[in-house]
Amino acid sequence: MRARFPRAFVMVVFFLLCAPGCRSGQKHAGGHEKVKPSTCRPEVEALPPSGEGQWPWTSLDQMDERELFARGLKLRLSEIWTPGQGGIARAAVGMKGCSASFVSPDGLLITNHHCAYRAIQRNSSDERNLIEDGFLASSRQDELDGHGLRVLLFRQHSDVTQEVLGGMADGLSDLERIEHIEKREKEIVKKCEAKPDTRCLVSRENHGLRFVLLEKLELRDVRLVAAPPESLGSYGGEVDNWRWPRHSMDFAVLRAYVDGDGKPAGYDPSNVPFHPEEHFQVSVDGVSQDDLVMVLGTPYHTDRYKTTHDVRQALEWYYPLRSDLFSEWIRVLEKTCEEIPDSCLPTASRVRGLNNGLTNARGMIAGLERAKLVQRKQDQLQEWIEWVEADPARNKRWRSSHDDLVEYLEQSRSGRDRDFLVKYVLIGSQVLGFARTITKWAAERQKPDEEREPGYQERDREDLLSDLKQAQRSLHIEADRRVLALFLARLGRLPPSERLQAFDSALMDPLTLAPDYGAAGIDLYVTALYTGTTLGDEASREKLFNSTLDELKASTDTMVLLALALAPELDAWDERKKERAGALSRLRPPYLESLIEMRGARFYPDANASPRISFATVAGYSPRDGVWHTPISTLGGLLEKATGKEPFDPPGAVVEAIKAGRHGAYADEALGDVPVCFLSNADTTGGNSGSPVLDGHGRLVGLNFDRVYENIAGDYGYNPELSRNVMVDVRSVLWYLDVILGAQHLLEEMSVTHAPAGEAHH
Amino acid sequence: MRARFPRAFVMVVFFLLCAPGCRSGQKHAGGHEKVKPSTCRPEVEALPPSGEGQWPWTSLDQMDERELFARGLKLRLSEIWTPGQGGIARAAVGMKGCSASFVSPDGLLITNHHCAYRAIQRNSSDERNLIEDGFLASSRQDELDGHGLRVLLFRQHSDVTQEVLGGMADGLSDLERIEHIEKREKEIVKKCEAKPDTRCLVSRENHGLRFVLLEKLELRDVRLVAAPPESLGSYGGEVDNWRWPRHSMDFAVLRAYVDGDGKPAGYDPSNVPFHPEEHFQVSVDGVSQDDLVMVLGTPYHTDRYKTTHDVRQALEWYYPLRSDLFSEWIRVLEKTCEEIPDSCLPTASRVRGLNNGLTNARGMIAGLERAKLVQRKQDQLQEWIEWVEADPARNKRWRSSHDDLVEYLEQSRSGRDRDFLVKYVLIGSQVLGFARTITKWAAERQKPDEEREPGYQERDREDLLSDLKQAQRSLHIEADRRVLALFLARLGRLPPSERLQAFDSALMDPLTLAPDYGAAGIDLYVTALYTGTTLGDEASREKLFNSTLDELKASTDTMVLLALALAPELDAWDERKKERAGALSRLRPPYLESLIEMRGARFYPDANASPRISFATVAGYSPRDGVWHTPISTLGGLLEKATGKEPFDPPGAVVEAIKAGRHGAYADEALGDVPVCFLSNADTTGGNSGSPVLDGHGRLVGLNFDRVYENIAGDYGYNPELSRNVMVDVRSVLWYLDVILGAQHLLEEMSVTHAPAGEAHH
Repeated sequence: MRARFPRAFVMVVFFLLCAPGCRSGQKHAGGHEKVKPSTCRPEVEALPPSGEGQWPWTSLDQMDERELFARGLKLRLSEIWTPGQGGIARAAVGMKGCSASFVSPDGLLITNHHCAYRAIQRNSSDERNLIEDGFLASSRQDELDGHGLRVLLFRQHSDVTQEVLGGMADGLSDLERIEHIEKREKEIVKKCEAKPDTRCLVSRENHGLRFVLLEKLELRDVRLVAAPPESLGSYGGEVDNWRWPRHSMDFAVLRAYVDGDGKPAGYDPSNVPFHPEEHFQVSVDGVSQDDLVMVLGTPYHTDRYKTTHDVRQALEWYYPLRSDLFSEWIRVLEKTCEEIPDSCLPTASRVRGLNNGLTNARGMIAGLERAKLVQRKQDQLQEWIEWVEADPARNKRWRSSHDDLVEYLEQSRSGRDRDFLVKYVLIGSQVLGFARTITKWAAERQKPDEEREPGYQERDREDLLSDLKQAQRSLHIEADRRVLALFLARLGRLPPSERLQAFDSALMDPLTLAPDYGAAGIDLYVTALYTGTTLGDEASREKLFNSTLDELKASTDTMVLLALALAPELDAWDERKKERAGALSRLRPPYLESLIEMRGARFYPDANASPRISFATVAGYSPRDGVWHTPISTLGGLLEKATGKEPFDPPGAVVEAIKAGRHGAYADEALGDVPVCFLSNADTTGGNSGSPVLDGHGRLVGLNFDRVYENIAGDYGYNPELSRNVMVDVRSVLWYLDVILGAQHLLEEMSVTHAPAGEAHH
Repeated sequence: MRARFPRAFVMVVFFLLCAPGCRSGQKHAGGHEKVKPSTCRPEVEALPPSGEGQWPWTSLDQMDERELFARGLKLRLSEIWTPGQGGIARAAVGMKGCSASFVSPDGLLITNHHCAYRAIQRNSSDERNLIEDGFLASSRQDELDGHGLRVLLFRQHSDVTQEVLGGMADGLSDLERIEHIEKREKEIVKKCEAKPDTRCLVSRENHGLRFVLLEKLELRDVRLVAAPPESLGSYGGEVDNWRWPRHSMDFAVLRAYVDGDGKPAGYDPSNVPFHPEEHFQVSVDGVSQDDLVMVLGTPYHTDRYKTTHDVRQALEWYYPLRSDLFSEWIRVLEKTCEEIPDSCLPTASRVRGLNNGLTNARGMIAGLERAKLVQRKQDQLQEWIEWVEADPARNKRWRSSHDDLVEYLEQSRSGRDRDFLVKYVLIGSQVLGFARTITKWAAERQKPDEEREPGYQERDREDLLSDLKQAQRSLHIEADRRVLALFLARLGRLPPSERLQAFDSALMDPLTLAPDYGAAGIDLYVTALYTGTTLGDEASREKLFNSTLDELKASTDTMVLLALALAPELDAWDERKKERAGALSRLRPPYLESLIEMRGARFYPDANASPRISFATVAGYSPRDGVWHTPISTLGGLLEKATGKEPFDPPGAVVEAIKAGRHGAYADEALGDVPVCFLSNADTTGGNSGSPVLDGHGRLVGLNFDRVYENIAGDYGYNPELSRNVMVDVRSVLWYLDVILGAQHLLEEMSVTHAPAGEAHH
C-alpha cells in the first residue's frame, strides 16, 4: 500500500501527526517487529492501510484487487459494480444530501436519523412529537408519508465529454463558454429524462476535464418506518457533533413505495412496497479494529487539488467569515426561541445546520493550520514544477496552467464579501428566498425551456413548488424577519460600491440622501416588508408561483416587489457565478490533467456527487499528544455520558436495558458490550451521511454519519493519521429495534436471524 | 502479582473499569496471546503489574524481591533501605506538604515548583517577579533565602507502641484516653528532640494499633537555586490540574545549607552547602511504557480501610459541602482580585489551593460514584463477616469490632456542619487565625510544657512565630475581611443551637434580641473588627505573640478580644476533636487488626506521613469509553496546547526552542521528542508532591506531582485500571536547565554527563 501514498501524504505523517505521543496506547505489542510498545516515531509502517480515495464505482476495474483481498476483501470487485451490469452497490441509493441503503427485498431502507429529520419533524405535532418520542410503525399500514423524501437509484453512467465540449466556437467569453456547457448539459439531461421517472445529472469530473452522465431512477413515495427519539439519534447533540468518542444512534428506517404497476409515484395509500434489484445483508457479526470496511455513497465535494491560493482564501477569508456569520445567525435564532417559544420547533433544524456549519468552519481553520496546508501546497507545487519542467513536452503543455489559474483567482477576489452575503441572505430570509424563486421562475418561464437557467426548467417545476410548500414547517415569520435584519446590517457595512442598490434605496434617508443601515431603520423596514407580504402563507406561495411575471409586477406584495427590485443585482450575481464557473472550467482542467498524468494510478477525482467507494480499515487515532482514540464505543460508554439533561438524556427504557445488561444478540464478544459507533480511516465528506458501511463480504455493518473534528480539513487533503469517519455500528441499530422496540417484524424482514455463538437471540 | 490483588480489587476491574472500550488503542498487538487487538474484555491479565501499596521503608524485607526483579528492579531491596543502616532512600527528604530529593553531594535538592511556590513568591517583588520570569542563580552566592523552607532527613524509626499504650488505666473516658496517648507521645517526642536539630513524630500506624517514633534531622537554611516561570512550572494551570495529558514542568531546584561546623542553622550568608550521606543519580536515559518505577515519599493520609459509613459520609456530606464552600470562597477572592488588583498576588496561592481542593472534591464525588464504592464496601464487609464467622476464635475476638465502630460513627454525626465551618473559618480569615494562635499560645503557656496541647509546646514556638511572620506575604486585609464575612453568613445559617455564641452576641440586634446575620449587619461588624485590629501588621503579631494572657485580655485589639470570646467554643471544638480521636483510637484498631490478619502479606498500612515506597509501572489508562491516555507527553504536545494566553502561554524562548527542534541530549529515541510528563500506576496521594521517581537502578527519572482526575477517589481504594499518578519527566527538567537556561554548572554538579547514543550533548 505504501506505493499508493502520494509523496505529499507520506510527508504529512512526518509533518504534523505523530510528533505528539500518539501510538503508545498499545500494550503487550510484541508481534510486529517494527512497532515497539509506546513508540511514537512517525512510522508509516505502523499506520493502518490508507483509506485514501473516493473511487468512482465505474473505475473499480483499475484497482488492485489482490491488495484488497490481502486487506480482507472477500468478494470480487466486479461483484460490487460492473459498468453496464451493476452489482451489490445498487443497494446504495441517493437521498437529498445523504445516502441510504436497501436492506430488504421489500424496499426497506436505512439511513441516518439526521437524513430523515425533516420527515420526522413533518410528522410531528404538539400531540405526537416523533422528534422527542421516536417512532415505530407496527405494520406497513402505519408507515408515515415521508413528505418529500425521495430516493435515487443509480442506473448507469456514460461519458458525454464530447457531446458537451464538442463544437465549441473559438474565442468565446467565459460567460459564453459556461452557457455553451450548460446548454449542452441541459440537452443531454432532457433527452435522458425523457425516460419515465428518471433523474439525470451531468457530473463534471475533474472540474470539467470530463463530463459524465449519471442516470437515476427516482422513487417519490418514501415512508417513515422507524426512528429512535432525537435524544438517541442525536445523542450528544452539538457537544459531541464532529467528535469522538461518539454514542449517537443516528439511524432511521424508511420504505420505498411504488404504484400498483411497480412504477414510481407520489404518496398514495394504495401504493405497494418497491422491490429493489439488490439489497444488503445486515450483519450482526460486526467488525473489529484492523478489519476492512467499505463505504459507498455520493460524496458531494472535496478540494483535494486546490492551489495554495485557494487554500489561503479558505483559511484566511472564507471560513473565518462563515464562522462569524453563522455565530451571529445562531444567536439571533436562539434569542428568538427564548423569547418566542413557538419559534423553537420550526427553527430547530436551521439552528442544527448552522451549528454544524460553525463547527465545520472552526475545525477547518484549526485543521488547515495544524496541517500547515498552505506550506504543503507550496511544497506540492514545487514538486509539480520539477516534474513538469523535467520533460519538454509536459513543459510546453502544462507549465503555464497553474500560473494562469492562480492569476485568474487573484483577480476575481473583488466583491467576494458582497457575493458571500447575497448567497446567504436568500437562505437566511426564507421569505425573501421564496420571492426570489417565484419571480425568477416567472422570468425564466418566458424563455424556451432549454434556454432557461439550470434549476428553472420545466423538469424542476415540481421540486420548486414542493420546496415552497414543504418550507412551511420550518418557517417562523418573526425569526425570519430578525434574520433578514441581521443580513441588512451586514450588507450595510460593505463599501458603498458593493452594497445592493435595492436596499440602499429602500433605506434611503430623505434628508441626508444616504441609506440608513442603523438598527432602528432596518427594524422599521423589515417589519414593513413582512407585514406587507403574504408569502408566509403556503397557499399564497403556490398561487404566486403560478403567476406570470406581469402579474407579479402588478402585485402589491412587498417581498415580491423587493425581489423584483433586487432582480438585476441578483441576476448579475448569478451571472458572476457563471462567469467564474466558465473561467474555471477553462483554467482548472489543464492543471488537473497534468496532476492525473503525474500521479497515475494514485489519482482519484475530487468528489462531485457521483457514486464512489472508499476501502478503509477500522482504526483509532491520536487527536493530540498523550491521547489515543480507540475505534469502538459501547452502550456502557453511552450510559457513562448520560446526565439526564439534553443532549445527554437517553430514554429511560434504554438506560434500564443498559444497566440490566440486556444486550440481546448484539454484544461484541471482545468488548463484552454492544458497540454503538466505530471509526475507520475511510475517505468521506458531506453527502456520505447515511452511507452504507460494508464488511469484506459486502454485508452492512454500519452507517456513516460524521467525521472527527481533526478530519474536517481532510476535504483539502487526506491524512493517514487523522482522516477518520464516524459510523453507527449496525449492532446498536439492531439492538434498539430488538431489545428496546421489540420490532421483530423488521428484524425478520431484514433476515437478521443468526446470532453469534454463545448468546441466544433475544 | 495476581496473588497480591485483594479480591475486592480484582472485582473492581470487572465492576467499573473495562466496561467501556478501554484498551483498543493497541495496534499490531500480536505477541501476547491473551490480548487481542481491540479487545476490551476486562482481563486482569492485560493490566500492568499493580502498583498498589504504599509500603513502609521499614518493611521492605517482607516484600517479594524476586517478583520485583522480574518486573525490572536492578538493585537489592536492602540497598534502598535497611532499618538501622539506611540506603539510597536517605536521598528522599520531607518538606512541608511535599517531598524532595538530594541530587548532588553539595546538597542540591529537586522538588516541585508548587512545593517551592511560597519561597519563589516571597522572593518576588514588583520589580523582580520570579513567579513570572523564573529564576536561575548563576553562582552559589546568588542562591536566594528560602524564607522558611525546611527539609527533614529521615534518620530512624522505632516501635513505641508499648511506651504509648502501656500503663493505661481501665475505664478511661475517650478524652482521658487520647490525653493519655498524647501525653506519652509528647514525652517520647520531647526526649527524642533533646538531640540537637532533631524533629520527632510519633506516627500512629493503622489508626493507633501501632505507634512508631520517626526521627528526622531538620535543615533550616534551604535556598532557591533555579525555577522555571509559573507559565511552565504550572503550565495548563487549573485547566489541566488533575488532568492528563499534562505538560507542566513542575520542578524547582533548591540547596540545603548548614553552618561552618556542618550543623543545621537558620539562614546566614556565611553558611555552607550541606553534604548529604546519599543523593540520587539523575538519569537522562528516561523510562518507557511498561518500565518499573519506584516512588518514594511521605504520603499523608489515605482511607483504604474505611467503613461503608465513612464512605457514605464522604460522598454525601463532606465532599459536597467542601465543594460548595470552596466554590464560594474562590468567587470572593476572584472578585476581590478584579476589584482590587493589589490583592491578586497575595491571594494567588490561596486561590490555587482552593481550586485544587475544589477539583479534588468534585473528582472524589465522581470517582466514588463511578467506583460504586459504597456497594463495594458492603461487599467487602460481607466477605469480612464470612471470614470472621468461619472461625470461633476470630469471631470472639473481632466480630463486634465493625459494629461498635459504626455505631460510634453514627452517633457522632451531630454538629458536623458547625465543626466543619469552625475548622475553615480559622483558615479563611487569616487574621482571626492569628488571634486564635496568639491567644491559645498565651493560654497554653500557663501550663507546664508537657501538659500543653500538641502544637503549643516550647518546641513549637519557633514554628508558630515563623508562620505568623511569613504569613504577611499572603495576607490581604480586605480579601481577608470579605472571606470572614462569607463564613459569618454560613455560620448564621446553622440551627441556633449550633451557632457560635460569640458571633451571636456580636451580631445581636438590640431590638429583636436575635442575632442579625444579614449581609449588611455582617459587613458592618467585620469592617469594625478589621479596623480595630493591628494583627495585619507583622511586628504587632510578633509583639502580641510574646504577651501573656492577662496582657491580651487587657488589650483593645478587636480580633484578640474576639478570639478570647470565642475561646470556650473553640476549646470545646478542640476537645470534641480529641474525644473523637480518643474514641477512634479505641474502636478502629481492633477492626484493623482483623483486616491485617485476614489479608496477610497483601496488607499495607494507610498513609500516615511516614516514609513509604510504591513499586509501579509506566502505564496509560482509559479515562472513558473510546479514549486511551498514552503514558508519555512531549514538548511537541506542550507547543500544540500553547495559545499564548494564560495558562497556556509558555515563554518565547521555550516556544522557539521547541519549534527549532532543539532537543539537546534529552529526546526519547522512540518518541522522537523530549518527554515532559509521564504516567505510572504508582500508589500516591497528598504529600507525595515532589517525590523522587526512580528507575529500576534507583536513578532519578522523574518527580511525582499529581494524580489523574479518575484517580482522586483512589484514596479510598486503589484501582488497577484508573490509579495513575503524573510525574515530570526529569528529561524535561534537564532540557530546560540546559537548552533554555544554559545552567551547565548545575548539570555538571548533578553529574549529568552521559548522553544517549547517537545524539551529541548540547
